[in-house]
Amino acid sequence: MAQRIGAHTIRLTEEVCISASAGVAGPMEKQGPLGAFFDRTFEDERMGESTWEKAESRLQNTAVHTMLDKAGLQPTEVDVIFAGDLLNQCISSTFGLRELQIPLCGQYGACSTMAQSLAMAAVFVDAGAAQRAAAVTSSHFCAAERQFRLPLDYGGQRTPTAQWTVTGAGAALLCRGAEGPRVRCVTIGTIRDYAVKDVANMGAAMAPAAADTLLRFFEDTGTAPTDYDLVLTGDLGLVGSTLLRELMKQHGRDIAAVHNDCGMMIYDPQRQDVHAGGSGCGCAASVFCSAIMQRLKRKGLRRMLFMATGALMSPTSSQQGESIPGIAHLLEIEA
Amino acid sequence: MAQRIGAHTIRLTEEVCISASAGVAGPMEKQGPLGAFFDRTFEDERMGESTWEKAESRLQNTAVHTMLDKAGLQPTEVDVIFAGDLLNQCISSTFGLRELQIPLCGQYGACSTMAQSLAMAAVFVDAGAAQRAAAVTSSHFCAAERQFRLPLDYGGQRTPTAQWTVTGAGAALLCRGAEGPRVRCVTIGTIRDYAVKDVANMGAAMAPAAADTLLRFFEDTGTAPTDYDLVLTGDLGLVGSTLLRELMKQHGRDIAAVHNDCGMMIYDPQRQDVHAGGSGCGCAASVFCSAIMQRLKRKGLRRMLFMATGALMSPTSSQQGESIPGIAHLLEIEA
Repeated sequence: MAQRIGAHTIRLTEEVCISASAGVAGPMEKQGPLGAFFDRTFEDERMGESTWEKAESRLQNTAVHTMLDKAGLQPTEVDVIFAGDLLNQCISSTFGLRELQIPLCGQYGACSTMAQSLAMAAVFVDAGAAQRAAAVTSSHFCAAERQFRLPLDYGGQRTPTAQWTVTGAGAALLCRGAEGPRVRCVTIGTIRDYAVKDVANMGAAMAPAAADTLLRFFEDTGTAPTDYDLVLTGDLGLVGSTLLRELMKQHGRDIAAVHNDCGMMIYDPQRQDVHAGGSGCGCAASVFCSAIMQRLKRKGLRRMLFMATGALMSPTSSQQGESIPGIAHLLEIEA
Repeated sequence: MAQRIGAHTIRLTEEVCISASAGVAGPMEKQGPLGAFFDRTFEDERMGESTWEKAESRLQNTAVHTMLDKAGLQPTEVDVIFAGDLLNQCISSTFGLRELQIPLCGQYGACSTMAQSLAMAAVFVDAGAAQRAAAVTSSHFCAAERQFRLPLDYGGQRTPTAQWTVTGAGAALLCRGAEGPRVRCVTIGTIRDYAVKDVANMGAAMAPAAADTLLRFFEDTGTAPTDYDLVLTGDLGLVGSTLLRELMKQHGRDIAAVHNDCGMMIYDPQRQDVHAGGSGCGCAASVFCSAIMQRLKRKGLRRMLFMATGALMSPTSSQQGESIPGIAHLLEIEA
């Protein structure tokens, strides 16, 4: 039975645990600072498939299979999977999960999708609507570039605020009363639109939503940044993270000492030419489900917030002159 | 507290009711047999907007505002809204709901999205994760044609199995213990892929998923088609409905006497040139939230199943040679 606290937060009352997870990634992510933490990496951006879209499906499929193997479970033992990605009509999820035959609820929150999917899974398990619920999201640099920006072959210039879409996926399994980090609270975000129109600056478009959700969570729960070892955002990158920290400071909730961002952790800016950092549905998912889950499990982290942000635009909406609305969903997690 | 029954069905234990709903539609739908039932219709396919995509956002926005007006509520009194559509990155939902500032969880299940969104809302309310949860989906003929098929200006020929995307939206509000039809059970579907590749025959691609979910529901709950006044599918159309009835008959669960399909109800095939019937996220949503909800409220229906089916393809997946996977989600509803 969940309980609403404050205006926007859901407190879970059962012991909802993340009992298993897996993060998988591509060759560039393997070469980054978190390379050794991924459960599986691929040497080739195609992952043995004929197209980048099928390669992204392979990432998602591999993440779920690896997670199930670690949990010692068959796909039939999972009651529902919440899944999403950035491709039109979420085809990475559809074709990646098709053979698994797990009841599927497709989620779309742009790069916030992993937090949203984890939130759905947590509420379903807490409610008894599922004994075991899974969450998975993915992204792929090459598939995203040609869909959202330019064909790679153009060799287009990237601006300093641009982020690099992570080639990766992460999957997590939630159930009651198992070993593993516990999900305590969930905050579902609302759309924030500060009229940013620069599609090469997603961090700026998403930072206000991140600040909004984080402030609501602190207000609803009566907690403060100092109550947490880590406030982890999904893919704000360098520009968005700087803005978020400034916004939080302005509101008297300085997070600088505890904040980190998956998009800043996954690549080495000195060695890897990623400009403002990593992004994509697969960024938060692959980092949280590998390096962060491993830290939680060995109690290197005791209490954290995981918040993924999404830029809810499409090339069509941008071509039609629209701004980029942001959204952020949050989970409070204890080791 | 939800309860799992059988392998795939969730039984809600609280009195989760659909306390208000609204269906809105375009000019062609207004001229159809259900024209008088919609809460609001538009004379023009543009709905006063400059593009079809913005027009679809207007449909979704109008559906939610109309529903809130009927319920006598402000947007701030809704804890969460589950929303989706067919456009890339679900922009009808984002831009249609942006000003409402209701916590948003984007859903993607192609044309199954209304059943999925209602299911999410029902579980959240049952669990206490939301006091009031809403569901809304939309589609727009002109926006869908140019994204999925051809620009309208080409005047392309349509095959006999092709369906006509409904210009419409539907919104529903769920809460506990109110007046209104009650959601009893939810069945989340799995992907079924019978290797149909004809993008002008979505009914055939989706019918196996519909049969699968319906058979699982009957098995899980120990019910039979004769226990229901109506088994309502979302947009199988003429071809898909015929196939579903045949498949169900083959499995000893003849639904012919109680089955109807929103895609077959919304247009008059004698007067309106829609070939195999209506389709789209807005088809099931606008019909269920208007004509069907009105019948439920005046007890013209006592016990029914609402099941929406989705074809989880994209133009890209079809161009890459993929088949069209189907999915179907179901709700059991009592007046």
